[in-house]
Amino acid sequence: MNIRVFATPREWTEDDVRGSVAIVIDVLRASSTITQALVNGAREVVPVSTPAEAGELAVKAGRADVVLGGERDGKLIEGFDLGNSPFEYSSERVNGRTVIFASTNGSPSLVRAKSAELVTIGCFNNYSAVTNSARETGLDISIICSGRNGKYSLEDFVCAGKIVEGLMTPHNSIANDGAQGSFDLFRYYRSQISEVVKHCYHGKYLSSLGFDADLEHCAKVDIHQVVPTLIEGKIRLPKANGSS
Amino acid sequence: MNIRVFATPREWTEDDVRGSVAIVIDVLRASSTITQALVNGAREVVPVSTPAEAGELAVKAGRADVVLGGERDGKLIEGFDLGNSPFEYSSERVNGRTVIFASTNGSPSLVRAKSAELVTIGCFNNYSAVTNSARETGLDISIICSGRNGKYSLEDFVCAGKIVEGLMTPHNSIANDGAQGSFDLFRYYRSQISEVVKHCYHGKYLSSLGFDADLEHCAKVDIHQVVPTLIEGKIRLPKANGSS
Repeated sequence: MNIRVFATPREWTEDDVRGSVAIVIDVLRASSTITQALVNGAREVVPVSTPAEAGELAVKAGRADVVLGGERDGKLIEGFDLGNSPFEYSSERVNGRTVIFASTNGSPSLVRAKSAELVTIGCFNNYSAVTNSARETGLDISIICSGRNGKYSLEDFVCAGKIVEGLMTPHNSIANDGAQGSFDLFRYYRSQISEVVKHCYHGKYLSSLGFDADLEHCAKVDIHQVVPTLIEGKIRLPKANGSS
Repeated sequence: MNIRVFATPREWTEDDVRGSVAIVIDVLRASSTITQALVNGAREVVPVSTPAEAGELAVKAGRADVVLGGERDGKLIEGFDLGNSPFEYSSERVNGRTVIFASTNGSPSLVRAKSAELVTIGCFNNYSAVTNSARETGLDISIICSGRNGKYSLEDFVCAGKIVEGLMTPHNSIANDGAQGSFDLFRYYRSQISEVVKHCYHGKYLSSLGFDADLEHCAKVDIHQVVPTLIEGKIRLPKANGSS
């Protein structure tokens, strides 16, 4: 099977990922936060592109029945319940509830990736689970870096490279320069994931907002054994999750 | 001064490069070929976005008075004089002449980069010259990877990283993740530039078309001491060039 990595959000189209299993990465912080919300019992996370869409959807669903989460410039959106820190998505806040989620970079990638055969969410936190589940599909694999405001982001590219390494088998091959470059950059940084997450551009910005604990959390490898999966516009944990 | 690398063509806007010195990279092959054409005496190279624009401009200038060069899918464009191999741009073909140039990736980057204070062309072939000239401006530096059909390309990113290394002084700092990532990836590949150029996606494609000699040529470091520079829509060698 072919492994492709898309380094930046505007370089891929719906056609590029069609028929493949997509792994959408936004290490800081959407993919880490969505994973945490589902681990803590959220019934589903519904990604939307804009805060306005989130608001419309919340009204339709019954505002009191949903949690509105996300960020703009890393900060809580006015009128929303939660920002984009994994620590905000505690069991107390999300267990059994629907989270409507509008982050700047990760959410639009998730919305656009729906032409893929299967859309999953990956980060360092669920590295092995998401990698193994993609490998087991036998499909081509599209690893999508959400980036930052359309631009290349180091933490996503290094996470992509780690997933490429985990996918390499005699049956899988590197099929674009993004996969080769991220794989090799991960090999350069192998033992320094936590430094990459702290010192990348967005890491430094989040640190300036006081989110150092988030950086430490988002750099942790394999603290969760789940594969958040987009099904009919909603991210859930398929039943098999947690047993792997 | 701040050093930024844009890893892919759609991640930067005219505002992102405004006021800086831009170094536009398309190792395979536009920036290598334009450099070669000017070294071989072309009066100027006029980059245009499409073959149609090239044709219109050629008619206005007098078709017999200009050389039409460029490629689509790596191949000669119907009705054009030359393709996109540096070896085609010999003194016999280009000396004293105007080349109108429409390549798929490099030309559109050059056309869009005009909001920069200064636009130069970089590749492995003129690495030291283009790096030194950018450093001497004292301006912020925007290194633009032309990529391939909008996507990340390894050879451009590694060349960008080499230029970042050459720009690092106590006065210059890495200002985005593209600069950090390309710098570190170059350090991973330091002694393997020729392998990167041969084994990247576009290198393999060009090899399949029989352009192996081009790959060898485009990987050569510092064979030319010139800085092709865009002035009023035309790429020329400023008078200082060749004396450095």
